[in-house]
Amino acid sequence: MPNSHEVVARYWAAAEARRWDEFAALVAEDVVYELPQSRERVHGRDAYVRFNVEGFPGEWHLVVERIVAEGSHAASWIEFTAEGRSQPGVCFFDINDEGQIVKITDFWPDPYDAPPTRAHLVERY
Amino acid sequence: MPNSHEVVARYWAAAEARRWDEFAALVAEDVVYELPQSRERVHGRDAYVRFNVEGFPGEWHLVVERIVAEGSHAASWIEFTAEGRSQPGVCFFDINDEGQIVKITDFWPDPYDAPPTRAHLVERY
Repeated sequence: MPNSHEVVARYWAAAEARRWDEFAALVAEDVVYELPQSRERVHGRDAYVRFNVEGFPGEWHLVVERIVAEGSHAASWIEFTAEGRSQPGVCFFDINDEGQIVKITDFWPDPYDAPPTRAHLVERY
Repeated sequence: MPNSHEVVARYWAAAEARRWDEFAALVAEDVVYELPQSRERVHGRDAYVRFNVEGFPGEWHLVVERIVAEGSHAASWIEFTAEGRSQPGVCFFDINDEGQIVKITDFWPDPYDAPPTRAHLVERY
């Protein structure tokens, strides 16, 4: 059983450092990446590395807030900063017996206005 | 060490079944619940149960897509359906030595349009 926590930690460290060869080695050749919010999908290691390199051409940085791993599954919460704006990103990972990532489901939660209907039930921060 | 995976599974089962006494017993008396997207926060078990009961008055259902747990941390991905609309919800949990949830960070990723700038790098589904 791979150490899925370590695999995901190395994945984010490689991305932040733009060590794309190391990043590529951490994902399986037939990796599937999905963005359920926009219903975009990328198939395969080469296409996925290209998506990361060419899809985000500007300056960006990420900080890992949390990684949680259990067996062949993992989840991460990062803070991603680009063009002076920071936002959370949440991923769920499937990892194979060789310690390679075979599936990534990626969520980007955007800010929204607090609903007035529940203002009496919450505080703001 | 509590079985954090089981704690979160019971938390969602209790919510779906509206077993609010069981739900309340799974969170610590000083639980903190945060929604980073709207910067809303709820402090304490009683307020948090009230938030769940009164904050979502209509019909709703949830299905657990994934739970990942590691030590005192867990993450979940659910599909939440209300008023005919389904959307993912992602939570990160902190769990204390007594197996009670002490912190919940809750994300609700909304649909967004696929950016045309990366249309050549993805397929749609």
